[in-house]
Amino acid sequence: MAAATLVRRLGRSGVLPLCCRPPAWDRARGPPPSPLQPPGLPLAPCRSFSNNKIQVELDESSGVAMMKFKSPPVNSLSLEFLTEFSISLEKLENDRACRGVIITSALPKIFSSGLDITEMCGKSVEHYSEFWRAVQELWLRLYGSNLVTVAAVNGSSPAGGCLVALSCDYRIMADNPKFSIGLNEAQLGIVAPFWFKDTFVNIVGHRIAERSLQLGSLHPAPEAHRLGLVDELVPEEKLMEKAAAVMAQWLALPDHARQLTKTMMRKAVLDRLVAHREEDIKNFITFISKESIQKSLRMYMEMLKKKKS
Amino acid sequence: MAAATLVRRLGRSGVLPLCCRPPAWDRARGPPPSPLQPPGLPLAPCRSFSNNKIQVELDESSGVAMMKFKSPPVNSLSLEFLTEFSISLEKLENDRACRGVIITSALPKIFSSGLDITEMCGKSVEHYSEFWRAVQELWLRLYGSNLVTVAAVNGSSPAGGCLVALSCDYRIMADNPKFSIGLNEAQLGIVAPFWFKDTFVNIVGHRIAERSLQLGSLHPAPEAHRLGLVDELVPEEKLMEKAAAVMAQWLALPDHARQLTKTMMRKAVLDRLVAHREEDIKNFITFISKESIQKSLRMYMEMLKKKKS
Amino acid sequence: MAAATLVRRLGRSGVLPLCCRPPAWDRARGPPPSPLQPPGLPLAPCRSFSNNKIQVELDESSGVAMMKFKSPPVNSLSLEFLTEFSISLEKLENDRACRGVIITSALPKIFSSGLDITEMCGKSVEHYSEFWRAVQELWLRLYGSNLVTVAAVNGSSPAGGCLVALSCDYRIMADNPKFSIGLNEAQLGIVAPFWFKDTFVNIVGHRIAERSLQLGSLHPAPEAHRLGLVDELVPEEKLMEKAAAVMAQWLALPDHARQLTKTMMRKAVLDRLVAHREEDIKNFITFISKESIQKSLRMYMEMLKKKKS
Repeated sequence: MAAATLVRRLGRSGVLPLCCRPPAWDRARGPPPSPLQPPGLPLAPCRSFSNNKIQVELDESSGVAMMKFKSPPVNSLSLEFLTEFSISLEKLENDRACRGVIITSALPKIFSSGLDITEMCGKSVEHYSEFWRAVQELWLRLYGSNLVTVAAVNGSSPAGGCLVALSCDYRIMADNPKFSIGLNEAQLGIVAPFWFKDTFVNIVGHRIAERSLQLGSLHPAPEAHRLGLVDELVPEEKLMEKAAAVMAQWLALPDHARQLTKTMMRKAVLDRLVAHREEDIKNFITFISKESIQKSLRMYMEMLKKKKS
Repeated sequence: MAAATLVRRLGRSGVLPLCCRPPAWDRARGPPPSPLQPPGLPLAPCRSFSNNKIQVELDESSGVAMMKFKSPPVNSLSLEFLTEFSISLEKLENDRACRGVIITSALPKIFSSGLDITEMCGKSVEHYSEFWRAVQELWLRLYGSNLVTVAAVNGSSPAGGCLVALSCDYRIMADNPKFSIGLNEAQLGIVAPFWFKDTFVNIVGHRIAERSLQLGSLHPAPEAHRLGLVDELVPEEKLMEKAAAVMAQWLALPDHARQLTKTMMRKAVLDRLVAHREEDIKNFITFISKESIQKSLRMYMEMLKKKKS
Repeated sequence: MAAATLVRRLGRSGVLPLCCRPPAWDRARGPPPSPLQPPGLPLAPCRSFSNNKIQVELDESSGVAMMKFKSPPVNSLSLEFLTEFSISLEKLENDRACRGVIITSALPKIFSSGLDITEMCGKSVEHYSEFWRAVQELWLRLYGSNLVTVAAVNGSSPAGGCLVALSCDYRIMADNPKFSIGLNEAQLGIVAPFWFKDTFVNIVGHRIAERSLQLGSLHPAPEAHRLGLVDELVPEEKLMEKAAAVMAQWLALPDHARQLTKTMMRKAVLDRLVAHREEDIKNFITFISKESIQKSLRMYMEMLKKKKS
């Protein structure tokens, strides 16, 4: 299915298919180990699919998928990336063998740099609309996912990259003060949308969110941990091991009860975007089309280019 | 009054009589000491009533009632227990001599094991309905109480036992890592209702509540204290002394201002259940009647039995 | 403009002119330095205005105003003080040269003692109404201000004084355990209004707010810092230096993005008072007119007088 088609189809219905998956109650303990596979074998049978931007491997014995961002140089969330991300999540969500997903980066030093600014600069209104719908779609799928979602944040994660981590069930970050995370939109002269804010407030509370969003703060890993923005810090070489251990802990719970609990916790914030989705797109287009904002984004891109060279 | 009658009467009105008590403004400093009682006498005049499951003693000189759960083996919240609990609270609430209540357990090692699973297993729809209404009733009375409510948590306190503690104004727990507390419903394959969740979020915030509820965590006392789930830890032998000191601190405030403040803080969450009470009962019945849930509860009870023997 | 006129005009419209100021986007980096002023000159060109109760100095080179309460003995928020405060804020808000304000006290040991009790004691219903509208007005202006607002709390700050600090973007307090801060209304037998509560909950969360409000706690500076009630403690002699440094950090952000973010964070709580403003005034009048409340306030004032002599 083409990206645009997926995006449009989901947009038209206006309803997030949160419950299209049959209740997982009866597979609470995961699928039985395959008789063909000796227990303890390190290389489990594995289905994998890879597109341009994201690589996914599903370990059928554990029910855990590994999703790796591999879009150099900085895993920026372009329309293409977002669409692949949504499609990959949908595939996993509908795969009865999959119960959880670990999200990480295949690139060094960066988890994701956030929304691709080139998608928001000098494009048509139609493009802005399609792009923003894809951002919404990804968040609705990820924040509302029935899977256990663990972010293994192995590099910096500003703006939209931070949102991806915030939308998971649990965040583990490499214990490196050079890596930072935060919703730094204000630094660029733009404003995080209300559902970024809602997600953030759910995690760090109102006071910390208010200050961090107004200052557009990027918090070094240790500070992010102190604020509750990430749940745990581990040395970078232990990150994947820890993520697997956390995932196993979450998968020890019966899926059905865990999923209903997650929905109960997140529904109010998800519903708010679903109810205001078209309005939110219009607001984004109006805001991003302003000459002052376009100028600010161009200046920011210039600054990034100079930094590189 | 029979339990069922009380429960039905309250249910029919659909309104919690939060304000049936005359304003306590003019007895802010407590009733004057009795002329018959020399000041400082250790044994204060005391009204006590005791039913099958709960013992209550009211010290008229201080205005403080002590409520002790004494339903072996684990103070589980059966229909009978819940009804006694509601009636006891109502009696104290309507007694002008009473300004606060300390809630604790008369049994060793357990505060309360939570809702009695036998009430939810293999019973009629009518029974489920009556049981659930009694759970709601207890919470509405306790969370909305005009009295100062202090939980002296002298043992483990899972699920509904945790809810009882969460619904008080202040929680002091015995500093023993073997005692744990938490809303562990997800471990049993069931889901804490929204008002358990609302009460929990009010105390520990959204992020901690989301993780703890999804994992069905039982937090050892020191961890519970770190998370804010209990306000204070003291050595077990100092628990009652500390509870009395905390109560005295709260009773130093004028009742009327304190009560209005408490109502202001808790009203939104109380109103939410009052508005959705019948719907919540229906949801409970539908959920608990599912064969998969019944099977899961039977398995859990089997597991508990094996553990004992 | 006379105080009563301002208050009435604002009251009649029923709408807070949050957005009357043109977007500050294009002056994000502050106005250019005046050609007449050599860079680095310590005494910047400065517009100042001073009324009876409050002194304001605006440093045009930095865009930062200093607002000092100078109403002996304790900067209590009388009708006159509140009106001057609102007018001063309005002036700064409409001055394109001003981007932020530091609020502090010119008196030793006290930031502000809160609402002036004499305005609530033995006066007419009309007076109570006018007074309460002025309290609302001040909060709507301050909590909804487009300026960066930093409270430099250089003394104790009970009740309404605490509200002033809570309504700023950032609170720095002198590191002196003799200075305390809190919403201690319950100690006086009165109840903080819902919007005091909403502001407080936004800052310290529900559990801490519930306990602190019920007990009417005044938290010594170190405890206030632990609870998050103030953001930072510094030695008293460093307070203004630190406030200036924090202000510079906040002013490094583009005004427009910061203002929109602030509005997004605070709008729900501001809107709630705007929607219930007249009702809130009526409630205040009914409450404060009660003989029991009047008696309690008179007793409190007697106690304060005795304390002084």
